Amino acid sequence: MTTNKAVVLVSGGLDSATVLAMAKAQGHECHALSFDYGQRHRAELVAAARVVTAMGVASHRVVTLDLGSLGGSALTDAAIAVPETPGEGIPVTYVPARNTVFLAYALAWAEVLQAGHIFIGVNAVDYSGYPDCRPAFIEAFERMANLATKASVEGHALQVHTPLIHLSKADIIREGIRHGVDYALTVSCYQATASGEACGRCDSCRLRRQGFEAAGVADPTIYQKMAK
Amino acid sequence: MTTNKAVVLVSGGLDSATVLAMAKAQGHECHALSFDYGQRHRAELVAAARVVTAMGVASHRVVTLDLGSLGGSALTDAAIAVPETPGEGIPVTYVPARNTVFLAYALAWAEVLQAGHIFIGVNAVDYSGYPDCRPAFIEAFERMANLATKASVEGHALQVHTPLIHLSKADIIREGIRHGVDYALTVSCYQATASGEACGRCDSCRLRRQGFEAAGVADPTIYQKMAK
Repeated sequence: MTTNKAVVLVSGGLDSATVLAMAKAQGHECHALSFDYGQRHRAELVAAARVVTAMGVASHRVVTLDLGSLGGSALTDAAIAVPETPGEGIPVTYVPARNTVFLAYALAWAEVLQAGHIFIGVNAVDYSGYPDCRPAFIEAFERMANLATKASVEGHALQVHTPLIHLSKADIIREGIRHGVDYALTVSCYQATASGEACGRCDSCRLRRQGFEAAGVADPTIYQKMAK
Repeated sequence: MTTNKAVVLVSGGLDSATVLAMAKAQGHECHALSFDYGQRHRAELVAAARVVTAMGVASHRVVTLDLGSLGGSALTDAAIAVPETPGEGIPVTYVPARNTVFLAYALAWAEVLQAGHIFIGVNAVDYSGYPDCRPAFIEAFERMANLATKASVEGHALQVHTPLIHLSKADIIREGIRHGVDYALTVSCYQATASGEACGRCDSCRLRRQGFEAAGVADPTIYQKMAK
């Protein structure tokens, strides 16, 4: 087992680009994993390809997930509108068990690659409404993962790293800038155009814009003309 | 939340048909979930459709999984031969993190359906070589699942049921017969023909055949002519 191998979940958004930069800075051989899960913001996948090409990875896979067909989220179900004002509780943009499914695939690939590390850009501060972004969930997943695999039977531990989990959006941006991340390559908007222009109004756009302001960094996001 | 709703993983094999019968006998409203994951024994999916039609379910979904592309198993990778003699340790037919991925999808669907139960036919006796069939793994998954979802935040517990986990193959068959399962509908062979004829030689065929013998039940399996 090559213990410095890592599977890094790369969505094409700001957070996962930062995570990839941090994993590389720690000396990991990074294998990027992206998902095509019927999300509305497919411009993310184009951004993911840009990010991994610009930053360099050992390999990149895009796995197609049949998650949208199970329904239940504004991000995969066209019948549910993406909200443009912050709501109470768990947002409708929450995709049922999404991080569980993402991490399950990362675990499968880590086992095939004999990688001892998984990196995921979950954040408990800004996304506190998403149950599967909480530290207790990640800890429980890691514990389960260490009972799930051949490697675990053979005594090789797998670590799930969440370097952003307690950072604010501004802290994440500062960390990424320090590691040379070009955020112009990333797309965070829940309803970006095909070319990656952001709406400027959804929760994700709002958090991103506030993050750049708070970090004192110029926002490189390209917004749709209407949103200006 | 309708607490008697259950997601039941139905592969088309002997074990999951038995689990479905047991879940129905317990009064659950059963929603069957099958996976098309590039497995060689695709005759299983035809069998799954036969089983759920014969036994009756509230709904049936077949989710396509892009698991084969991650490689690493004789069941999804044509470059690895299916063994016909029992080996030591974890068999090459093990699919990396398969049950983790299956259960992650079951969890997602359970959340959409507001189901409080998942049934899976894992078995720690015959398949002790598969790490993700062990009771400790299932317990860890259930614990994680109860931190992963909206329902869990709202205080609704999800139970993962493994009614076969400590049964021998003969016990499973006796249980199924008691609940009226027609095992002629099921396919267990790792390399069945398109019409569902079994090879009679792989590990799965061997365990199934021995199970019928030990249970004192006539084996309804249709074997390929060459295997006789």
